[in-house]
Amino acid sequence: MNNDAVTAVLLLSCPDQKGLVAAVSDFLYRNNGNITHADQHTDLEKDIFLQRVEWELADFAIRRDEIGEAFRPIAQRFHMTWSLHFSDHVSRMAVFVSKLPHCLYDLLARWRMGEFQVDIPLIISNHPDLRSIAEGFGLEYHCFPISPETKAAQEERTIEKLEEQRIDLIVLARYMQILGEGFVDRYLNRIINIHHSFLPAFAGARPYHQAHERGVKIIGATAHYVTPELDQGPIIEQDVVRVSHRDSVADLIRKGRDLEKVVLARAVDLHLRNRVVAYGNKTVVFD
Amino acid sequence: MNNDAVTAVLLLSCPDQKGLVAAVSDFLYRNNGNITHADQHTDLEKDIFLQRVEWELADFAIRRDEIGEAFRPIAQRFHMTWSLHFSDHVSRMAVFVSKLPHCLYDLLARWRMGEFQVDIPLIISNHPDLRSIAEGFGLEYHCFPISPETKAAQEERTIEKLEEQRIDLIVLARYMQILGEGFVDRYLNRIINIHHSFLPAFAGARPYHQAHERGVKIIGATAHYVTPELDQGPIIEQDVVRVSHRDSVADLIRKGRDLEKVVLARAVDLHLRNRVVAYGNKTVVFD
Amino acid sequence: MNNDAVTAVLLLSCPDQKGLVAAVSDFLYRNNGNITHADQHTDLEKDIFLQRVEWELADFAIRRDEIGEAFRPIAQRFHMTWSLHFSDHVSRMAVFVSKLPHCLYDLLARWRMGEFQVDIPLIISNHPDLRSIAEGFGLEYHCFPISPETKAAQEERTIEKLEEQRIDLIVLARYMQILGEGFVDRYLNRIINIHHSFLPAFAGARPYHQAHERGVKIIGATAHYVTPELDQGPIIEQDVVRVSHRDSVADLIRKGRDLEKVVLARAVDLHLRNRVVAYGNKTVVFD
Amino acid sequence: MNNDAVTAVLLLSCPDQKGLVAAVSDFLYRNNGNITHADQHTDLEKDIFLQRVEWELADFAIRRDEIGEAFRPIAQRFHMTWSLHFSDHVSRMAVFVSKLPHCLYDLLARWRMGEFQVDIPLIISNHPDLRSIAEGFGLEYHCFPISPETKAAQEERTIEKLEEQRIDLIVLARYMQILGEGFVDRYLNRIINIHHSFLPAFAGARPYHQAHERGVKIIGATAHYVTPELDQGPIIEQDVVRVSHRDSVADLIRKGRDLEKVVLARAVDLHLRNRVVAYGNKTVVFD
Repeated sequence: MNNDAVTAVLLLSCPDQKGLVAAVSDFLYRNNGNITHADQHTDLEKDIFLQRVEWELADFAIRRDEIGEAFRPIAQRFHMTWSLHFSDHVSRMAVFVSKLPHCLYDLLARWRMGEFQVDIPLIISNHPDLRSIAEGFGLEYHCFPISPETKAAQEERTIEKLEEQRIDLIVLARYMQILGEGFVDRYLNRIINIHHSFLPAFAGARPYHQAHERGVKIIGATAHYVTPELDQGPIIEQDVVRVSHRDSVADLIRKGRDLEKVVLARAVDLHLRNRVVAYGNKTVVFD
Repeated sequence: MNNDAVTAVLLLSCPDQKGLVAAVSDFLYRNNGNITHADQHTDLEKDIFLQRVEWELADFAIRRDEIGEAFRPIAQRFHMTWSLHFSDHVSRMAVFVSKLPHCLYDLLARWRMGEFQVDIPLIISNHPDLRSIAEGFGLEYHCFPISPETKAAQEERTIEKLEEQRIDLIVLARYMQILGEGFVDRYLNRIINIHHSFLPAFAGARPYHQAHERGVKIIGATAHYVTPELDQGPIIEQDVVRVSHRDSVADLIRKGRDLEKVVLARAVDLHLRNRVVAYGNKTVVFD
Repeated sequence: MNNDAVTAVLLLSCPDQKGLVAAVSDFLYRNNGNITHADQHTDLEKDIFLQRVEWELADFAIRRDEIGEAFRPIAQRFHMTWSLHFSDHVSRMAVFVSKLPHCLYDLLARWRMGEFQVDIPLIISNHPDLRSIAEGFGLEYHCFPISPETKAAQEERTIEKLEEQRIDLIVLARYMQILGEGFVDRYLNRIINIHHSFLPAFAGARPYHQAHERGVKIIGATAHYVTPELDQGPIIEQDVVRVSHRDSVADLIRKGRDLEKVVLARAVDLHLRNRVVAYGNKTVVFD
Repeated sequence: MNNDAVTAVLLLSCPDQKGLVAAVSDFLYRNNGNITHADQHTDLEKDIFLQRVEWELADFAIRRDEIGEAFRPIAQRFHMTWSLHFSDHVSRMAVFVSKLPHCLYDLLARWRMGEFQVDIPLIISNHPDLRSIAEGFGLEYHCFPISPETKAAQEERTIEKLEEQRIDLIVLARYMQILGEGFVDRYLNRIINIHHSFLPAFAGARPYHQAHERGVKIIGATAHYVTPELDQGPIIEQDVVRVSHRDSVADLIRKGRDLEKVVLARAVDLHLRNRVVAYGNKTVVFD
């Protein structure tokens, strides 16, 4: 396989049934699909089958814009929820920030280095503080200050901007505002947040202070899709680091920053490479 | 230093003050103490100073049974809470179990291999299930079944046994009963429990089921001193292991068992080597 | 799915070709196979395809003793190396030890608790030291002391014992002898060794001393299949633990013991659940 | 303690002797030193004592520019190697790079965010590629291309630049040149390199390719002081991440980048906060 070869990725979930795998693999085989990655998972409790399959487009018998149509009958037969992606697609990502710059710096450096195959048309914030960073990377920075009174209106203005720029993915890079339910529903499973604790431990505010107060020996960070229920969305990635009594709250915050930025970046990367399927309040990560 | 040389260990905590370190080190120096380990910590929020210092007894100018008396004036001057230990002391440990054997097996194998410098005069349980394991290691097994009605009386009988055997340390090796407040107070900071989650996440019952339901990507285990408030005692040690959507509840339980036994054993080892000082709801682990 | 349902597991590897996945999934579908686990991997450098597929036997259209025969034509068409396993099979495992008991204790406790679905007909050693442990668990202990002169003859006697007992899997639980090439070839990919370092770091003797001398901040352990080249076999599992300047060689050994026993047990478990395929000097672990 | 209070830090090592701790703590106590951190270590094999002690300057009886003089008699009496640092000192750091930008981006972002208390007067490279990044952060970028013929002369020119800028610390942020022995000696224990493997595993070139070829299940990164012997210098920090057969070399490189930048940053941070003492080929990290 040529590493740069364009591939198609099919992500699907449906009630578990016999013949599913055979139907999908037969569809690809009949059409001369050269599979480069396939993984599947059965949630035995909920009887849900989930699959990711990736194949090269070069020799595939169906034209790329007709694959969806050709696959639809199989999808309908098995009542699949499914999506089709192409590896040369460049997603459009908006980053939301407040005052803390470490995740923003990290995401923008990765983007600039080509780690993410993504366009970042705009940075959105409720504070003006990080404007110079965004502009240093040549990016638009839109500041929508939010108060209880203005929240609804500001979210509408934000959505306008996002639609104008055809945003696929929103990354909350230590954005310290709770998004409204309408906003969340509109971008369901397309908003990734980084929570600065090992959820569900220390949900809510000031988790490093909570962790220090509790005297834990390990702290963590959690990247998850945002759902209307705060800190309850499907977890994409978590990681931890060991701490000790020697660490002050400031040390936890310092150690936590590195966790946050790496865990968030991993989650964004997994999402962009179409490796994540969210279902219920969980994810399957086909790594 | 001869690794087998007998040492004295002083563990102390007190309000932070100038001259503390100088006073302790001067006491040891004047009496020809050869320090083999010293570590200290200042809790800057609570202004508490904690120290562990270990020195060889061989050339020390004060006889071992007079060290406490000699040190007392310094302790009083600085309002210390302190304890003195000797490295050749063999602690007396009781293990409490219910039905799950993995931590018990692990502790007994370590004891038999000489990993722990400890005597284990008895195993206590609220179920008969693990009797044959205890007896296979040549240990007494006392079964005190507990119901809401009998609990108080059974705890009294248990305490009698513990006192009869002059028990220093109680290890709850997946003991599925909540100890009464009087019991806990009597053995404060001398009861170590293993909780099968990364506390404070999934406190309470069936944490692996909770973890699976929540879809976390990492699970943990927590060894802590028991306090009257359930799952709130000072944490001694924690560790984690990565899991994925592929892991069923049974897999989490299986992976968790290894965490539990290792984390519990580390905590017991740290306690026995006089490396832990609990204060408030926290510990300092002088590792 | 009933968790106790008997399943069949097919492990296969072959040159990568189109139609492979379709052929296998079609075989199962046509015969009414209810797939409970499927995973696959393509080694793109060596163009090798590897797959694990597991399905319930209950409703399968082919009798279990005829499945191999029925599958053979597919295997031949794709030039597969393959093996077929049944989840109710009880493997027969021999444990080889020298003088260190921690891995032996751990394996035997797991076996006794039912963690491993395995029979352990005998323990083999080149030293008499651990006899009482084996016998405490009711197991035969055969001591074959080895010197350069007796090595070949003792290995023959050992092989006789292993064949007599129809041993499937040999676990070297800190066995401090190098097996002869003929021995290794006879049990290729059926001998699991635990090396007490993070291979390839500190291959050879006294790795903890080497690690201490080098001043590393992390130590590890490695479970691998034994090949004629020492410490070079396919790695099944590794894990690490953080250490510091505070840790003496004795501390590294102590911390390492826990790594060794857990890493070895994980590798044995993966092997017994037919999760590992070795090819070349690597493994695919279908976890 | 006021977190912003200026402190003095004493780092020392010397042959282990009685009275050392007492002498140092007495010196501080007599001069009204309020100790905020103290840690010590005895290398029992080499009989070397190492200590870090930090105290507030505010009420200290000796003026900051006279502390060294006042401490000298104690240092001489115990044959100490020692250094004195002040927490408000701003180190001057040069970053050396070649073509890979991830560590450079990360270090510069941390510097800009104030994570490091440091000035970065210049970036040095043997390639022009990363000039725009340096300049985007407003930094001088000096390109000294190196061939076997020009190496000695280019190192001299480099040293001139470093001296001109009074550089305290050199960070090799994936700098792909081996420094000459004279260069290394001049900045002994003041050059930090990041090696993209878990040393001593995979020393030398292309470690991710080596790791993939070997089929390891964990990869790592190592930050160390540079010594004339390649990849043999005292290790400051290491960390690892789990990988699997699913990871291609490209995946290892991608995962490794995050390790490299975090491990390097931790080492730089520890050095800048005067937490590291190198002795022989090891470090003591007073964390």
